[in-house]
Amino acid sequence: MIFLAGDHERLRGEKTVSLVLMGFGHVGRAFFTLLQEKAGSVQKKYGLKLRLRAIFEVNGGLFSSSSINQEDVTGKSAADLPHSPLWEPALEVETVLRMVEAGVLVECTPSDIKTGGPGLRHIRMALDNGWHVATANKGPLAVALKDLKQKAQRNHVQLKLSGATAAALPTLDLGLVSLAGADILAVEGILNGTSNFILGKMDQGTGYSEALEEAQAKGIAERDPRLDIDGWDTAVKLLLIANTVMGLELSLDDIKVQGITNVPPALLEAARKEGKALKLLGKVHRKEGNISAEVSVSAIDRSHPLFGVEGTNKGVVYFTDSMGAIAVTGGKSDPRGAAAALLKDIINIYR
Amino acid sequence: MIFLAGDHERLRGEKTVSLVLMGFGHVGRAFFTLLQEKAGSVQKKYGLKLRLRAIFEVNGGLFSSSSINQEDVTGKSAADLPHSPLWEPALEVETVLRMVEAGVLVECTPSDIKTGGPGLRHIRMALDNGWHVATANKGPLAVALKDLKQKAQRNHVQLKLSGATAAALPTLDLGLVSLAGADILAVEGILNGTSNFILGKMDQGTGYSEALEEAQAKGIAERDPRLDIDGWDTAVKLLLIANTVMGLELSLDDIKVQGITNVPPALLEAARKEGKALKLLGKVHRKEGNISAEVSVSAIDRSHPLFGVEGTNKGVVYFTDSMGAIAVTGGKSDPRGAAAALLKDIINIYR
Repeated sequence: MIFLAGDHERLRGEKTVSLVLMGFGHVGRAFFTLLQEKAGSVQKKYGLKLRLRAIFEVNGGLFSSSSINQEDVTGKSAADLPHSPLWEPALEVETVLRMVEAGVLVECTPSDIKTGGPGLRHIRMALDNGWHVATANKGPLAVALKDLKQKAQRNHVQLKLSGATAAALPTLDLGLVSLAGADILAVEGILNGTSNFILGKMDQGTGYSEALEEAQAKGIAERDPRLDIDGWDTAVKLLLIANTVMGLELSLDDIKVQGITNVPPALLEAARKEGKALKLLGKVHRKEGNISAEVSVSAIDRSHPLFGVEGTNKGVVYFTDSMGAIAVTGGKSDPRGAAAALLKDIINIYR
Repeated sequence: MIFLAGDHERLRGEKTVSLVLMGFGHVGRAFFTLLQEKAGSVQKKYGLKLRLRAIFEVNGGLFSSSSINQEDVTGKSAADLPHSPLWEPALEVETVLRMVEAGVLVECTPSDIKTGGPGLRHIRMALDNGWHVATANKGPLAVALKDLKQKAQRNHVQLKLSGATAAALPTLDLGLVSLAGADILAVEGILNGTSNFILGKMDQGTGYSEALEEAQAKGIAERDPRLDIDGWDTAVKLLLIANTVMGLELSLDDIKVQGITNVPPALLEAARKEGKALKLLGKVHRKEGNISAEVSVSAIDRSHPLFGVEGTNKGVVYFTDSMGAIAVTGGKSDPRGAAAALLKDIINIYR
């Protein structure tokens, strides 16, 4: 069919793309599984032959001269990787990046928003060696977004971050592609599913502690829920979105961050009386050259484009000069959703 | 700032892009006005120097060897164009397309979904002469989408249709870019603001005729509202979206179309009792290789991603295999919104 997105590529012939996967936790494994499932359709539709050449974990990695497949990975967790015949305990990331024809490094190691963690080193190494990067790890971006983006530009490669900015919810694509030419006056987002779930319960009359316990029992909130409920997860995503789409250079220090642990009872009461919804909203507004950025619990009414974003759902709305307000909502926020966002970024790098 | 979308282009130097505008009705004039307003920022941000070389109306056109500006257009309607010093009564479209370095033809003449109207001829001529096309006119696409897309491909140019598929609401970008790699199982859309406004009034207890009169009094519905309320406007947009994003080859005959004039009272009653919302929904579902396509009034509940799309707003939701359901809502649906969609398509052609 003439409108299949990959026709351009197909006419130009197929392209082989090397992938290196960093980290085999929830998201890394989901990416590996999705890749097994989608390799055929991605080749057919977009003309891309994706070849997973290496998977790295803490003490080594798997390496294949062709592509790592399901049968090469025995068991389902990172701890099982060393049992694979492809395991090499002394495998070095840089060696692989230099030896293999450059493609995309897929960064899925644990996020550390204070130091950037090992992911920061991986991304720098990839960009320096002419590899594109698709990352689901927010840590390195929270610490060094500007530096990394400049490095990518100097090396003529791309740094893609959909997986780190609300997973399958296409916050960045929408702002960069669909709003091209419009001035973005403000962005507001519900960017953390856990706190949205808890606030929804509180809206219905449940107390904070009880709502948190329910979220933990359902596996929605972590045992240590601080990053989610303190607003910092929202703040990091907001930062990445605003800096990418609005062309700003905010740092986390520029964002006033309040979490959901101390919602004033008066706000809760007023919201209920007036039929409003309580949301942990990240907001960046630009007014006459001034930028304000904050994360806080807001009571929004029916007319707000994110009013209907309930449960663990997320959403973002851009307010523009020429297109009005445009909101995007939904998108799986589990590891599979993040994996799908990584795959999307990889495809779009080569379009 | 490193994240401005146009940096790539700017590093490669600036590019001059010739534009030819077909039609100076509501949308054509809004595009002209937006161009005056945005030319500077588009050059700065995306490195594109947009030069409007000609504006065509029924009996001739304006032509400039540099660019048509505000001062060249005396008065605000098509009828005023002949008073401009740049007016040439015998100006031929094909002459201009051959003489001027190829750029983008912007098609804004009145839509005729039965024959394609003059727009069909303009688009064919542009593609045959190596011009890209951005169209706000649905008629030619309803009649000859496949043929035109093939012609564009053969001539290595692009045919962009955001302006014809719900204006500033980014239905196509979302499906093609943000969902890359995902299988789209279904699309559902509220694609006609007029019928959504009328149904909203009916939901609140107003009768159909009274709601239509109110919409006409407010300038929301046309004197002859048939295309909107009969469901055909929705059907055409649905067709364009499904064929583009899902890779289908539906024709209008494949879509079961019902309008809003005969909502069964039982449906209305049931919706009110159960707190559901009545929406004129265009739906294409793919199930085990079978495609079903229809436009009809549906009662949707709170959990539907388009439940909150009220008044003259529009929205579309994609149901996917790997990303869950993703909805986009809002976007100006007036001539300025359509103009902004045309400008976006022009920018994205050159990225």
